[in-house]
Amino acid sequence: MKQGLLIVVSGASGTGKGTVCNALMESLPELAYSISATTRSPRKGEQDGVNYYFLAREEFEKMIEEGGFLEWAEVYGNYYGTPLKKIQERLAEGQDILLEIDTQGALKVMEKCPEGVFIFLLPPSLEELERRIRGRGTETEESIARRLGAAKEEIGVGRKYNYVVVNDRVEKAVEQIQAILVAEHCRVEQNTKIFEVLEK
Amino acid sequence: MKQGLLIVVSGASGTGKGTVCNALMESLPELAYSISATTRSPRKGEQDGVNYYFLAREEFEKMIEEGGFLEWAEVYGNYYGTPLKKIQERLAEGQDILLEIDTQGALKVMEKCPEGVFIFLLPPSLEELERRIRGRGTETEESIARRLGAAKEEIGVGRKYNYVVVNDRVEKAVEQIQAILVAEHCRVEQNTKIFEVLEK
Repeated sequence: MKQGLLIVVSGASGTGKGTVCNALMESLPELAYSISATTRSPRKGEQDGVNYYFLAREEFEKMIEEGGFLEWAEVYGNYYGTPLKKIQERLAEGQDILLEIDTQGALKVMEKCPEGVFIFLLPPSLEELERRIRGRGTETEESIARRLGAAKEEIGVGRKYNYVVVNDRVEKAVEQIQAILVAEHCRVEQNTKIFEVLEK
Repeated sequence: MKQGLLIVVSGASGTGKGTVCNALMESLPELAYSISATTRSPRKGEQDGVNYYFLAREEFEKMIEEGGFLEWAEVYGNYYGTPLKKIQERLAEGQDILLEIDTQGALKVMEKCPEGVFIFLLPPSLEELERRIRGRGTETEESIARRLGAAKEEIGVGRKYNYVVVNDRVEKAVEQIQAILVAEHCRVEQNTKIFEVLEK
């Protein structure tokens, strides 16, 4: 059985990770989203094991202690994390898994899972990034300037990834990520079994 | 200016390198074939600088001495080689170059140009490889057995490449190589300029 690929899509705030990943999932039904665990309460319609694994605070902290997360973070008093064992099981079954995650989380995943495929989404330009951040229309000038500064810093982290994809058009970004998946499945390290069979 | 990619497509005898490379060139007009140099005489219709660079024996040997070939070999008394400088010039212009070459040649290219993208074509199975070798209908049983044995040995070399593509259908093999090219252009090492611009 061929091992699945862990595809990590990440990027600075405002680069459109979510939109690209949703379009990617629609175009590749065989790809599975990584399901996060969280201690926050389910919102209306959210199902355990579908949207999130909903855990009690004590369960989550026990899993942290046991090294059960690929990465985790506490945000506004709630824990969020990527359960390691579930991902390992599905990868072993040959399932490709998509993990959409912020840059801090991605750096942690790189440490624990360097064989993952790390894709960094870039905005077409800083002007466009600013337009997108402003476009939400919900933030003050100060907050926009702070977010833009943070985004510039985050972009530098992209150098540590395997691939960069410029998100100037969602369809184009999705096509490039699809090509990356095809190519990664062709990598020699993914195909050692073929040689074993042919050399018998 | 973004550097072009040197795409090396290689594989054991009988895996269909030529057919796949011709189909690839047709589907990607922006890709350029590497033009070999040779000391053999031009055949009818062959043009210097198009089919081959036709060189005199002394010229070729002088270029060998000067390290002017990415790889070269002598076959039935004629020299064949890949001129290094021409390739470097075109890569620097951002031109992707396709080099279709046997496994021995590819190993030499790996040494001189490790940043190349090395794609190994595999036959779908040894049975199919045998069928293809037999299919030419021009060889004795002894010659077929020898070629098949050599092909099995050659297949092992594939582990040194970056990618393997199984040539069970030409269109599928071409699609996979196209995806590899897209992915390689997305590699972080190919896109350092983007970061420089965005971080200014």
